[in-house]
Amino acid sequence: MPTLKKYTRKLNYSYAPGLFASIEALKNKPESVQRILISTKLEDQLLEKLLTLCKEKNIRMEQADKALSRISQKENCLAAAVFEKTQHIDNSESRHLILHHPQDMGNVGTILRTALGFGFLDIAIITPAADVFDPRVVRASMGAHFSLNIKEYESFEEYKSENSERIFYPFMLDGATALEDACAHKKEPFALIFGNEGSGLPKEFSHIGKAVKIPHSDKIDSLNLAIAAAIAMYGFTR
Amino acid sequence: MPTLKKYTRKLNYSYAPGLFASIEALKNKPESVQRILISTKLEDQLLEKLLTLCKEKNIRMEQADKALSRISQKENCLAAAVFEKTQHIDNSESRHLILHHPQDMGNVGTILRTALGFGFLDIAIITPAADVFDPRVVRASMGAHFSLNIKEYESFEEYKSENSERIFYPFMLDGATALEDACAHKKEPFALIFGNEGSGLPKEFSHIGKAVKIPHSDKIDSLNLAIAAAIAMYGFTR
Repeated sequence: MPTLKKYTRKLNYSYAPGLFASIEALKNKPESVQRILISTKLEDQLLEKLLTLCKEKNIRMEQADKALSRISQKENCLAAAVFEKTQHIDNSESRHLILHHPQDMGNVGTILRTALGFGFLDIAIITPAADVFDPRVVRASMGAHFSLNIKEYESFEEYKSENSERIFYPFMLDGATALEDACAHKKEPFALIFGNEGSGLPKEFSHIGKAVKIPHSDKIDSLNLAIAAAIAMYGFTR
Repeated sequence: MPTLKKYTRKLNYSYAPGLFASIEALKNKPESVQRILISTKLEDQLLEKLLTLCKEKNIRMEQADKALSRISQKENCLAAAVFEKTQHIDNSESRHLILHHPQDMGNVGTILRTALGFGFLDIAIITPAADVFDPRVVRASMGAHFSLNIKEYESFEEYKSENSERIFYPFMLDGATALEDACAHKKEPFALIFGNEGSGLPKEFSHIGKAVKIPHSDKIDSLNLAIAAAIAMYGFTR
């Protein structure tokens, strides 16, 4: 196998840095894991645990201190999973989450973790956007990345061509329907759509479905993107 | 006035870095603003706006490029408000938010912004905790800091001695009451209580009020603190 490179978007593989994320990758998406890298500093018990998992899933494990520090850019990274980037969502599922041009990796990671918590297992990302496969997003998702289906689209139209029958709920600051009402009358299968951190969704999204707003005081301009998405997902699963 | 120091917890003043935060400070808590620092690079229109506000509030404004870069640790900080740290919450208000040992400054800032959005204007912080007056928290709050009452307490008991008649809702992973039920039967005046990012609230909090959980899939260990607090505040204001 060739030398592992520092992650860039162009690679067809990425890294799950850290012991916790490596275990989540092995447990929940072993078919995508190419190998596990471990530090020579890893203590015996943890080594044992990883080794058992790797044997069970028939995945190669190797000591690779140099590669680990190059990949993680942190000194004390004890393990990492090298995983193949796969693009797939399940179009038959009833709950989709669509992120349109999200730009903050921390936000995206937090949203993935919350989505898993509320049973939104299929995530569509409309690019340009933060790279959802970047190790920093994987890390911020606390391993949730490996329990989700994720697919990037070049436009909302491309997503829609695969999901023409779906009911869309775009979240917009000037949405006509309050979240509570939208939840009370929700139709399935649905997709909740959120715009960029700074600019929200473009105006034209108000025509693709019922535009929803999360009522809040006018003392703030808007809620943080990850906060808004969380409140919306919580509401739609009640 | 003596030289402005790089912020540390011991100082009785702090900084609101950035133009936006400075304006929020001047508009919403002018009585705490000691002076406004501006960069010589600030463009005329923005300078005009700040100058008008400063005159209106009778606050000194001065060009201080060196102080700005020392304070903000960023190169292109165009303005900052120097403000007095005041400790105060309004005990008669019906909604309190209590953060017990929060440790992440970004989380605390995001929670402040969300709290303002949902009308939780009084925030109690139980220390040890991230310094709620740190410029990084002020920045992460997007200016919300200056529309809130904030007070640090050395223990929950100290807070309680000032708020003995309040109904407490501690949020715990094993809480017996689901958020929806707690909201449906809420009693005022209330305080929502959240624990530390890693460890949550200590067990004994389950005895001080109805312990509430936010139902989520067991595929994640917990929700992010800022996310959980946001969902709870949203629920309690419906």
